[in-house]
Amino acid sequence: MFTCIGYAASSATTPLAPFTFQRRDCGPLDVQIDITHCGICHSDIHTARSEWGPASYPCVPGHEIIGRVAAVGVDVTRFKLGELVGVGCMVNSCQTCASCEAGLEQYCDAGPTWTYNSPDPAFPKTDAYTFGGYSRAIVVDERFVLRVPENLDPAAAAPLLCAGITTWSPLSHWKVGVGHKVGIVGLGGLGHMAVKFAVALGAEVTLFTTSASKVEDGKRLGAHRVVISRDAEAMAAEANQFDFILDAVSAEHDINAYLALLKQDGHMVLVGLPEKPMSIGAFSLVAKRRSLAGSAIGGIQETQEMLDFCGKHNITSDIEVVHADQINEAYERVLRSDVKYRFVIDMDTMPKSVEA
Amino acid sequence: MFTCIGYAASSATTPLAPFTFQRRDCGPLDVQIDITHCGICHSDIHTARSEWGPASYPCVPGHEIIGRVAAVGVDVTRFKLGELVGVGCMVNSCQTCASCEAGLEQYCDAGPTWTYNSPDPAFPKTDAYTFGGYSRAIVVDERFVLRVPENLDPAAAAPLLCAGITTWSPLSHWKVGVGHKVGIVGLGGLGHMAVKFAVALGAEVTLFTTSASKVEDGKRLGAHRVVISRDAEAMAAEANQFDFILDAVSAEHDINAYLALLKQDGHMVLVGLPEKPMSIGAFSLVAKRRSLAGSAIGGIQETQEMLDFCGKHNITSDIEVVHADQINEAYERVLRSDVKYRFVIDMDTMPKSVEA
Repeated sequence: MFTCIGYAASSATTPLAPFTFQRRDCGPLDVQIDITHCGICHSDIHTARSEWGPASYPCVPGHEIIGRVAAVGVDVTRFKLGELVGVGCMVNSCQTCASCEAGLEQYCDAGPTWTYNSPDPAFPKTDAYTFGGYSRAIVVDERFVLRVPENLDPAAAAPLLCAGITTWSPLSHWKVGVGHKVGIVGLGGLGHMAVKFAVALGAEVTLFTTSASKVEDGKRLGAHRVVISRDAEAMAAEANQFDFILDAVSAEHDINAYLALLKQDGHMVLVGLPEKPMSIGAFSLVAKRRSLAGSAIGGIQETQEMLDFCGKHNITSDIEVVHADQINEAYERVLRSDVKYRFVIDMDTMPKSVEA
Repeated sequence: MFTCIGYAASSATTPLAPFTFQRRDCGPLDVQIDITHCGICHSDIHTARSEWGPASYPCVPGHEIIGRVAAVGVDVTRFKLGELVGVGCMVNSCQTCASCEAGLEQYCDAGPTWTYNSPDPAFPKTDAYTFGGYSRAIVVDERFVLRVPENLDPAAAAPLLCAGITTWSPLSHWKVGVGHKVGIVGLGGLGHMAVKFAVALGAEVTLFTTSASKVEDGKRLGAHRVVISRDAEAMAAEANQFDFILDAVSAEHDINAYLALLKQDGHMVLVGLPEKPMSIGAFSLVAKRRSLAGSAIGGIQETQEMLDFCGKHNITSDIEVVHADQINEAYERVLRSDVKYRFVIDMDTMPKSVEA
């Protein structure tokens, strides 16, 4: 065990604050990582505030982790000291169910071990739970460690581990590419990555946004067209044209308005998680054999494929780097959608010691 | 033009009654059919009563048509006098859009010409509309006429033209077959055909029904298992197991309860059209990359494939034959779900003449 410093919420209503805790030493198959950067994902806020069910406290969030290998277990074969690596939303899974065998550990029948706030299989007979990436170091089974191309800016690469893979996975699974007309709904942390990926994959990309102020930014990110979704006439002109629509909006919105834009056999895929049930007209689906699906983050193998693709195409997130003592302020700005498009914590700003 | 006798609704609130009208003579590519049987579909009732928007009156419903070829146009190559043939929900389409070119005329961009109550392209400069199969004869472009295997009972084959193809099309498109665990929701006109088809295609079939009284019938039709969907414990035991679920229920019901039964990448397909929007939780889809799609009837090519499959496997509908003067009574029984599982009108019982 070694002492680690991080930032934790000590209850659903308290701001995050410096926190000292113990990490396990490297087991035979473990990789110990000195974290250099960690993205701030909206899920972090939901969990820290117990909005997705009661969290365990103290809660150290963070699952967009970038760092360098600091130690490896005796049986580790895939990583060397000093390598640039990443860790995403998962740090373990059953490894035996059909989903795990297919490399889609996020759909593990038993449920994967999440990077934070999840019962920790390293301490099976205790009530220990995982601590995430808002910390100076982490120890992870090598099967859940990703290789990050050295040509990528480490800070801007951090959000690839969640916002990136969450949008990459459906684009890849539904084979989006050249000749496809693709819509991306919402320009936020997820949406801005989806635009970059869909463009790099060769699709003709239309961004749908509620904000006229985002038109310019959408085009800068590569979208070939931007449609203001509040404009009913503009939306009607897009009917029956899209092969694929990725919906990255978590706020309540009209799904039928987008289903109507799909051509025959078109797919719309949700990666956001609106809290309230969606209201879907059966006719929206039946009329042209359209489908509405959902997709959750991505498996380890496809996360590596995405990172390799990013290295080749020099794709990272648009970020704003913050200091550890700005995490709470960043949370408030995320809630106001005042971020283009992801905050990333510079771990050098984490305190070196914490008073008891 | 020739005089034809049928049964028509003269308004949304009047019972159907004998009706005399004119059919066009055979054009070069037309087939004239002496109708022997026509199924009664719930859509007939919706249309005759203007429940799907205002109908044109008099309205002659009927799109599950079986008969024998009585005459052919000079350029007809595919049909001979006396052949057993069928006509389904469509009698024409644009023939040029991508859906028509793919043989999926039901998704025609311009909308197909429906068999009844649709503007009639045979009389383009008039306000003429199509008259359906509750009549002694019909004249249809040969491209929309189906060949019916002679080994099938003509009366019991009639519902294949709508209830049959509506369930066959999604089972075929999603390639349901050996090794698939398939759920069929609802045992009515559509559901009973879906059970027969899915079983004949080699799938392991579970019927979901609200009625304990339908368990025995479900098994007689071939379902390997029957689950009472009101039994929450029984439903919970089915979670995450199905490759494919066909939902043939038009009444309001909980879609999420069935989405939860799909395994990773499973598909649920709606062929019913509940009037009210459905309430769908995003998590139901995102959790295991499940999809919810819709499907409308089927194209002409796949309807012929279904009929050929039915001939080979000796599959028809379970029916109750009624006389023309029982149509209104049959409508009331359909509305009470008092039919196993389709009424078919014996056209020999249609009056030979109608007093003006």
